[in-house]
Amino acid sequence: MTITLEQNNYGESHVGLLRVMHRGSFHEVKDLDVSVRFDGDFEAAHSKGDNRNILPSDTVKNTVHVLARQYPAEAIEEFALHIIEHFLTYNDQISKVNVSVRERLWSRIPVGDKPQATAFIANASEKRTAQIQATRERMVLQSGIEDLTAMRTTSFSFEDFRRDPYTTLTGTRERIFATSISAAWIYEISEPDLPFSTMWHSARKTLLETFAAHESRSPQHMLYAMGQAVLDNLEAIAEIRLALTDNHYALVDLKPFGMENENEVFSTADASHGIVEATLRRENDHHRGGV
Amino acid sequence: MTITLEQNNYGESHVGLLRVMHRGSFHEVKDLDVSVRFDGDFEAAHSKGDNRNILPSDTVKNTVHVLARQYPAEAIEEFALHIIEHFLTYNDQISKVNVSVRERLWSRIPVGDKPQATAFIANASEKRTAQIQATRERMVLQSGIEDLTAMRTTSFSFEDFRRDPYTTLTGTRERIFATSISAAWIYEISEPDLPFSTMWHSARKTLLETFAAHESRSPQHMLYAMGQAVLDNLEAIAEIRLALTDNHYALVDLKPFGMENENEVFSTADASHGIVEATLRRENDHHRGGV
Amino acid sequence: MTITLEQNNYGESHVGLLRVMHRGSFHEVKDLDVSVRFDGDFEAAHSKGDNRNILPSDTVKNTVHVLARQYPAEAIEEFALHIIEHFLTYNDQISKVNVSVRERLWSRIPVGDKPQATAFIANASEKRTAQIQATRERMVLQSGIEDLTAMRTTSFSFEDFRRDPYTTLTGTRERIFATSISAAWIYEISEPDLPFSTMWHSARKTLLETFAAHESRSPQHMLYAMGQAVLDNLEAIAEIRLALTDNHYALVDLKPFGMENENEVFSTADASHGIVEATLRRENDHHRGGV
Amino acid sequence: MTITLEQNNYGESHVGLLRVMHRGSFHEVKDLDVSVRFDGDFEAAHSKGDNRNILPSDTVKNTVHVLARQYPAEAIEEFALHIIEHFLTYNDQISKVNVSVRERLWSRIPVGDKPQATAFIANASEKRTAQIQATRERMVLQSGIEDLTAMRTTSFSFEDFRRDPYTTLTGTRERIFATSISAAWIYEISEPDLPFSTMWHSARKTLLETFAAHESRSPQHMLYAMGQAVLDNLEAIAEIRLALTDNHYALVDLKPFGMENENEVFSTADASHGIVEATLRRENDHHRGGV
Repeated sequence: MTITLEQNNYGESHVGLLRVMHRGSFHEVKDLDVSVRFDGDFEAAHSKGDNRNILPSDTVKNTVHVLARQYPAEAIEEFALHIIEHFLTYNDQISKVNVSVRERLWSRIPVGDKPQATAFIANASEKRTAQIQATRERMVLQSGIEDLTAMRTTSFSFEDFRRDPYTTLTGTRERIFATSISAAWIYEISEPDLPFSTMWHSARKTLLETFAAHESRSPQHMLYAMGQAVLDNLEAIAEIRLALTDNHYALVDLKPFGMENENEVFSTADASHGIVEATLRRENDHHRGGV
Repeated sequence: MTITLEQNNYGESHVGLLRVMHRGSFHEVKDLDVSVRFDGDFEAAHSKGDNRNILPSDTVKNTVHVLARQYPAEAIEEFALHIIEHFLTYNDQISKVNVSVRERLWSRIPVGDKPQATAFIANASEKRTAQIQATRERMVLQSGIEDLTAMRTTSFSFEDFRRDPYTTLTGTRERIFATSISAAWIYEISEPDLPFSTMWHSARKTLLETFAAHESRSPQHMLYAMGQAVLDNLEAIAEIRLALTDNHYALVDLKPFGMENENEVFSTADASHGIVEATLRRENDHHRGGV
Repeated sequence: MTITLEQNNYGESHVGLLRVMHRGSFHEVKDLDVSVRFDGDFEAAHSKGDNRNILPSDTVKNTVHVLARQYPAEAIEEFALHIIEHFLTYNDQISKVNVSVRERLWSRIPVGDKPQATAFIANASEKRTAQIQATRERMVLQSGIEDLTAMRTTSFSFEDFRRDPYTTLTGTRERIFATSISAAWIYEISEPDLPFSTMWHSARKTLLETFAAHESRSPQHMLYAMGQAVLDNLEAIAEIRLALTDNHYALVDLKPFGMENENEVFSTADASHGIVEATLRRENDHHRGGV
Repeated sequence: MTITLEQNNYGESHVGLLRVMHRGSFHEVKDLDVSVRFDGDFEAAHSKGDNRNILPSDTVKNTVHVLARQYPAEAIEEFALHIIEHFLTYNDQISKVNVSVRERLWSRIPVGDKPQATAFIANASEKRTAQIQATRERMVLQSGIEDLTAMRTTSFSFEDFRRDPYTTLTGTRERIFATSISAAWIYEISEPDLPFSTMWHSARKTLLETFAAHESRSPQHMLYAMGQAVLDNLEAIAEIRLALTDNHYALVDLKPFGMENENEVFSTADASHGIVEATLRRENDHHRGGV
């Protein structure tokens, strides 16, 4: 029997890193979770235990720390690009680097009406994300948001859906919609000097404003409106993938106790949830990908 | 051999509940996790399997739902008081009720510069809490905050501490302090019509402002200053218990790579942490407890 | 206004530690999570920022590592006693030490029918626990189990319980009982050379056998039987505290689809749960506590 | 601007389900977490809010419950196949169904030396998994294991690896290897009547025995040996993907305290970890996939 080693990779996951940038007495913080993976010439390591092409995962961690010291990058995309460039430059044995960065966001604590220079409070569970996959020929750069938790209490309906013998759900003109939003987008042209942070804030604002205002007939309808608004508002974005959960906040039946419950009391205990996922792309999608 | 049944209680934990209040087209949401425990005459249930004094925990859940429908309480303390009163009124077999409520906070999503009436985004992991223990004679009401995550990047020192042969830490005039804050306070007089929400926001603001501004020499020093500020600013509060973690954000040693690291790059991977806990009380503490 | 510093303590939480003991080529592993807290003379640290009585929490971590190296303790109780003794001996400023140890259990991997000497697989989520609180005069030593997850599918009833207007539950002769068991016990005489591991295994076996065989009429009835069996079987144990959750595995209503469901399909999605807690003590409880 | 709806799907995630099978007075339990996703003709739902092709995710949940009642399947693969068949048969608008099942494993509680018929204890965190993706033309069936936590304390080396200026790790002939193992395999021929459970237990045994016995020079070397052993021993398996974490159990430096530490005390607090992933395939791979 012959065995083929198919796709393989290795790396270091979840390097936790806080970078404090001193702008005089005014500090900025970047709180990051960094993962790095390599594809490359690792056949001998697998089949023979020959480690000569294996840069230790411990070295990956050191390198992430060193590069964080050298480059006080404002945007996580820039930091990820530094990591990519470092490993592709000094490691012939590596053919592809995949860097994933998740940023936990902090705000300044206000004292009186003045934000403090060096005191911070953690924001919501929401994370800013960047993922870059690059070979020496080609790069795909994704920016995104994870775990953005939001809720609509009106103007969300779900009616006239498909039914079968196991369908008990009744259509409704007015339901609650509670969701965890994940988004990831790629740019028309992936250039290292794009204003990543400005665009991230614009995309986030567009997603939330559409979520807040859209008269939706389903999670799919909502998702599409959110993706369309981003592609409409942000010309630099070529494609966006969205995933929305549909958390089962169940209207509690209070009839046994002689009470109405017109969208007032919901049970949130159900751990299962619906999920909708889709990718929307602008038609004039010529330039995607290359740097 | 004789066996004595000592302290015993039962109840229902983690009833997940969303209450939507319709103020015309303007909605408010309360997202609650409610736990209820009973002390009482349950000896026969334990020793003989006689359930006549056991109100099912399923009924507790129903009751929480019903009371949420009946009382669109603005403050979680008020809601907890309704639960207490219900069970003590209708259940002679129950001698003591313990209600614990944790509120997950949501903010309105702004569209343009106007907050939406019915669209919300989840705040940080921080929770507002209330815990009430009550018999027919006596009540202890605690309000609080859990999991308020904050960080100072300057003006926090730790020097001249006790040393022993296993001490390797060196004193420092300037260290980082990253913490998860928990607080719980009791009032001089526990009256059901205290302005609980106003006081909660005042206490939270005082805790954070003190955290942001204090020149601290240790986590203990910080804790004491935070508690003192609350007792100074809020006369209605008689006693406050605070717990601060001291998260080990370790300054990465970059000397092996020929680099300085003056409080710029920290590793956040260590899951262990220091902890400081204390209760501060105002001396003129005559009235604590009774309603 | 004068402020009093009431109960206060500090320490180090969740020191993660693996101890490998080399018995020739045969290895044993102890996988521990250790927390240590101190009460003592820490007033000046709080009110004045005077750290001279504060042994750093970092030193606590070092000490736990050093003591793990020095004492290859078979039982976590013995290891906790070494920690207690160390801190009480060398630190006059400390009046009380509280040590909590949670052990994650591993089994040897069998190869063929022979357990390997140096290869292990992690057991269930269940943890073995020990907690010791000690001053220079007095010690309380607790041994226990946490997160022991078990289930009964027959011979568990719940009938003839108390009803009120919000009770919808119907009594049943045959219900499912799924639970997470926590137990903690104290000994008649807390001597450092008790056979802690032997007794832990006996207590665990007794708890599980009673759980498996008892014809229970309620979670309370089950809890009492389990506690009673431990006190009956293990004379050295003076008192046991038990907590059982009652996980809401809901019988799915299949009638809308023309089907019976006689305890065959349950939904396990509900995150809320019932809880029963009690302490049982042997009457002849003279000697509890002192070492 | 025109927008294209690319890949899109929806479904229901994490339906928690317990199936009790009554073999006379002898019970068996299957504790499952089921997720179902659909690809299909959902364009109008997204762009127009037309729900006529959307079978509600609530119906998916009902269907999983109904099918669990109808088919007391011994293997999760069989159960997943029933779900696939149901949805593809009755839903023309659905082109592809993706079913993912994770099984939490339970063992019978022994009383004396006899395993109880109706009392169970939860096994380790390890899960048995199955994932089936199927269109009307083609099916890919994967069986697997997740979160199998294991450890080697000898005969694992890591030497002669690649070094760069940020490498501080020194090679070692004897290191610890603690890992979380995930595996997923596909069969030479995906037939619904394969003995899935027998093969799962064989694959698990082979993986663990290889893990326990192999003299490994790296995580890659170990992974390859484990995959090769499965392909060697189980002819029905065509391809296996393995992922091993390399948990950073750090040897504690006790030299500052005048002590040696020869692989005896490790710190387990570091949350970052290395990761190795690869797919191994048998060369004579003609038949993969079709049923």
